[in-house]
Amino acid sequence: LKIEVKKNILATNASMAAENRSRLESHGVCMLNLMASPGAGKTSVITRAIEGTRDRLKLAVIEGDIASEIDSLAIEAMDIPAIQINTGGSCHLTAVMVASALDHLDLEALDLIIIENVGNLVCPAEFDLGEAGRLVIASVAEGHDKPHKYPLIFREVDAILVNKIDLLSYCDFNLTQFHQVVRRLNPTAAVIELSCREGYGIDEWCQWLTATATGRRSELPS
Amino acid sequence: LKIEVKKNILATNASMAAENRSRLESHGVCMLNLMASPGAGKTSVITRAIEGTRDRLKLAVIEGDIASEIDSLAIEAMDIPAIQINTGGSCHLTAVMVASALDHLDLEALDLIIIENVGNLVCPAEFDLGEAGRLVIASVAEGHDKPHKYPLIFREVDAILVNKIDLLSYCDFNLTQFHQVVRRLNPTAAVIELSCREGYGIDEWCQWLTATATGRRSELPS
Repeated sequence: LKIEVKKNILATNASMAAENRSRLESHGVCMLNLMASPGAGKTSVITRAIEGTRDRLKLAVIEGDIASEIDSLAIEAMDIPAIQINTGGSCHLTAVMVASALDHLDLEALDLIIIENVGNLVCPAEFDLGEAGRLVIASVAEGHDKPHKYPLIFREVDAILVNKIDLLSYCDFNLTQFHQVVRRLNPTAAVIELSCREGYGIDEWCQWLTATATGRRSELPS
Repeated sequence: LKIEVKKNILATNASMAAENRSRLESHGVCMLNLMASPGAGKTSVITRAIEGTRDRLKLAVIEGDIASEIDSLAIEAMDIPAIQINTGGSCHLTAVMVASALDHLDLEALDLIIIENVGNLVCPAEFDLGEAGRLVIASVAEGHDKPHKYPLIFREVDAILVNKIDLLSYCDFNLTQFHQVVRRLNPTAAVIELSCREGYGIDEWCQWLTATATGRRSELPS
């Protein structure tokens, strides 16, 4: 019985995700689903992307959180449309929640929507939101063994952002081991090393984002 | 309908949790449920506890993970009984999973069981496992706003461990603001600052653990 409940929930979600996807395609908008643990730096990665691409891309953000509006206020302070979804108790966004958020955005005026999912490495990976691409952030402070423990999310993404790279000398994070495990799980994802705090790697991140939003990812150096 | 499914799951879980609780009480074993984000330092907090209390307490560990046995192997290497639960896809432990783990432990020989829950600040807080007390770890690298965003888990615990305090000068973590928010959510929890990496705060952590496991927490300095 439990499994069927889950199957039904996922099937309903998948059909709503397909609706979101065709709706966005008809407006020429690229939507990306950004996932990570609590505190890995999702909002900082987004604010850095806004600073680095606002001359090229018209961007909006959908913020998913259990509670609070901290993140959407930070985005709105940058004059970027931000829709806050508070999930109540739910540990992931669903396609229905995202559909309601899309109702509040002027899709014709946008190139790119970044969804900041709820801070969680587990359930968000199971729910298609209708996005064109998926990203996960791994924070150096979390240790290099996270892909071992949360394989699904690392397997399913188009890009892996290794954030807080400035903490490398203060944490037990083996970058070589991390790359090896990630490559076994996901041979094709872009892996971008970043420090949002110190500004390292931001150009590469913004380049990837622009190429993805404009459908020219094949032109990126591999 | 959705809500009823959840109600039924939680009701079934609650009755199994009550069974676990009375089973442990009859053997005089204290069980604690340790929760945190991925990479906040749950396993390090446990290995530090083992080193610091093994002359006083007979300890066992139940390890919850989506996948991998990394953590239970680390505990077994210290000659401490460790039961690994791999949840498959599930983002939290349930009382039924813990009951099966208890079947594999010699309860009469133990004082304390620490459960390392799946790395997640959301769902684990909703599932009673039959524990006598709950703990959450906040990592300095995650930022001080986590209690705002995940209020339930901070509200429900008996102790909050602020780990990676050695990273304080390299991260934007305001300790005063963190304490203020935590106190509003939870006026009675012990708040213990730790660096498992550098050994700071370990005495206080082991003192709290010993007092809790032996039922003498009222004797602790407040």
